[in-house]
Amino acid sequence: KAITVLPGDGIGPEVTAAAVHVLQAIAKRFQHEFEFHYAAIGGAAIDTHGQPLPDETIASCSTADAVLLGSVGGPKWDANPPELRPEKGLLALRKQFNLYANLRPVKSYKALESASPLKAEHVSGTDFVIVRELTGGLYFSEPRKKTSDMAADTLVYTRKEIERIVDSAFQLARTRKGKVTSVDKANVLASSKLWREIVEEKKKGYPDVEVEHILVDAAAMQLIREPSSFDVIVTENLFGDILSDEASMITGSLGMLPSASLRDDEFGVYEPIHGSAPDIAGQGKANPAGAILSAAMMLRHSFGMAVEAQAIETAVENVLEDGYFTADLHGGRILSTDAWTAKVIEELD
Amino acid sequence: KAITVLPGDGIGPEVTAAAVHVLQAIAKRFQHEFEFHYAAIGGAAIDTHGQPLPDETIASCSTADAVLLGSVGGPKWDANPPELRPEKGLLALRKQFNLYANLRPVKSYKALESASPLKAEHVSGTDFVIVRELTGGLYFSEPRKKTSDMAADTLVYTRKEIERIVDSAFQLARTRKGKVTSVDKANVLASSKLWREIVEEKKKGYPDVEVEHILVDAAAMQLIREPSSFDVIVTENLFGDILSDEASMITGSLGMLPSASLRDDEFGVYEPIHGSAPDIAGQGKANPAGAILSAAMMLRHSFGMAVEAQAIETAVENVLEDGYFTADLHGGRILSTDAWTAKVIEELD
Ligand SMILES: CC(C)[C@H](C(=O)O)[C@@H](O)C(=O)O
Ligand SMILES: CC(C)[C@H](C(=O)O)[C@@H](O)C(=O)O
Repeated sequence: KAITVLPGDGIGPEVTAAAVHVLQAIAKRFQHEFEFHYAAIGGAAIDTHGQPLPDETIASCSTADAVLLGSVGGPKWDANPPELRPEKGLLALRKQFNLYANLRPVKSYKALESASPLKAEHVSGTDFVIVRELTGGLYFSEPRKKTSDMAADTLVYTRKEIERIVDSAFQLARTRKGKVTSVDKANVLASSKLWREIVEEKKKGYPDVEVEHILVDAAAMQLIREPSSFDVIVTENLFGDILSDEASMITGSLGMLPSASLRDDEFGVYEPIHGSAPDIAGQGKANPAGAILSAAMMLRHSFGMAVEAQAIETAVENVLEDGYFTADLHGGRILSTDAWTAKVIEELD
Repeated sequence: KAITVLPGDGIGPEVTAAAVHVLQAIAKRFQHEFEFHYAAIGGAAIDTHGQPLPDETIASCSTADAVLLGSVGGPKWDANPPELRPEKGLLALRKQFNLYANLRPVKSYKALESASPLKAEHVSGTDFVIVRELTGGLYFSEPRKKTSDMAADTLVYTRKEIERIVDSAFQLARTRKGKVTSVDKANVLASSKLWREIVEEKKKGYPDVEVEHILVDAAAMQLIREPSSFDVIVTENLFGDILSDEASMITGSLGMLPSASLRDDEFGVYEPIHGSAPDIAGQGKANPAGAILSAAMMLRHSFGMAVEAQAIETAVENVLEDGYFTADLHGGRILSTDAWTAKVIEELD
């Protein structure tokens, strides 16, 4: 299997290196062959290639079976014009490869409950996935307009775009607890009304899945009040952006959370949801768990290696249970990025 | 002073009645004259007048100095066509009276900290106001389109619309801790770029106010991680809808939170942010604090009665400190809506 690694900026290189080490350990233990190719994205690519998503990077991803991404962005590029901002690389990658389904699992770890801003009784038992539509809505719709006197963005969704993401959510729910929560603002938005209609149509094809509709404002409350009530949450691009970041606070560490950006075939881009954290870059303080668990998602979704994926997930959980933490987590014995990764690899041997 | 009361649906009538009793106590103690006029809105108005915001209601509000609203909505009208839904009454009221500035204060009460889903150390010291733009953006922009194959909404802001809400926020910050947090999605949206530019321009006129910009996804995290870091948060309509509902979870009870919807003169519409809670309507279980504190906001903003407003706020705090709660709050002695209101009035005498 060919994997393109896009380390990116800030702590991206450190955490992707950790994930690569874990994948190498998996290759050894389960006798797979993984080939790693490296390419530039984000600020790093702007510095070396003059653009956030160079053609070489697109070419490398095109021939890969999956992509492992670190993180992009940093103060160095903050004053750049829009087209030369690191995030543009990320947005262009999503669009280029038609990665319309962004999966963000949120799972609470017993060992980390004390680190959550939420009380343990609200956090415990939390285990859901946000399925965020990633290539439509306000992020990419035309027309977009800006003068010094007004500005306009457009929120467009086609039936096809909604159908495929809703199908992804239903299919995922079938492999989990069998419940889909569709989030919209159907009391205000036309696009949400169409969204809700399509969910209602689609649910007939999944009689085994329970469906609920909830308004985005109510969802923002419910995520805090009772996160364990969710299984699969499906929503449009911008609502997904806001709710998944809100949800990331539940578990007690952003650094633990992986994500996958998928399309209809096996290909996918996998990345931790944390940012580039330029303030701690290069200091061995970064939590590699988000990247390592993203690699596990890659094994499961792109390579059909469910046992291997589970082995990584169990290893991560065991290391936490043993009380080994990284600097972002409070309590436990604090290890460096490499030392913590080594503990995960020990568990895998 | 003439006050139009719009009780609305569900628990709306009970909580507005409680607020009216408190205002009557204020009138007596401070020797004011308040005249109360009643009119229909929401589901109640659909039932009696065939529309959610009847002309008589508009007329009554037009001649009033301020409006006290309960809440709208309920399962009875859920299947109605869009134009005959209770929320349409609310949206039409905002637009009709050009109520562009929605203020939602979020303040933690010592007595309620244990009721919050958040740990006390995250909640305590929380005291901020969300200033939400209320008459622009995706809620009201044209074109809006929907066929069975696609749907589109438009997010438009004019310079003037942004300037006036940003001014409101700066002015409010001056009367508080002197900090404005502007929330946008400037890395993606044209409307957010204009928003951010205007905040940057405006801040020159308020050199005494500290300004920060934060992306809406980061704001959704920060609200949970460190709510006490905020003073005044200003944002566009839909972001404000989502973030203010998220923020409402911080304090431990939605039932406690008031709101004001204002324009350039003294006139305003005041309402608790909780919904109509049809499941407990008419049972004397509703928490009237949100409505009572909304009445306090009315005294302060529409009538220039800061001392009277403070008297209500202190009374509410004292009743909580004395351990008198309503059914939605956990712990303390649980009183009925009327009995709890009577305690507040006792404090005022
Ligand atoms: C960097 C930004 C454009 C991006 C987004 O809004 O999608 C990020 O917040 C994310 O969620 O991956
Ligand atoms: C009822 C609904 C249209 C309304 C809104 O979205 O503005 C409500 O959620 C609110 O926040 O007042």
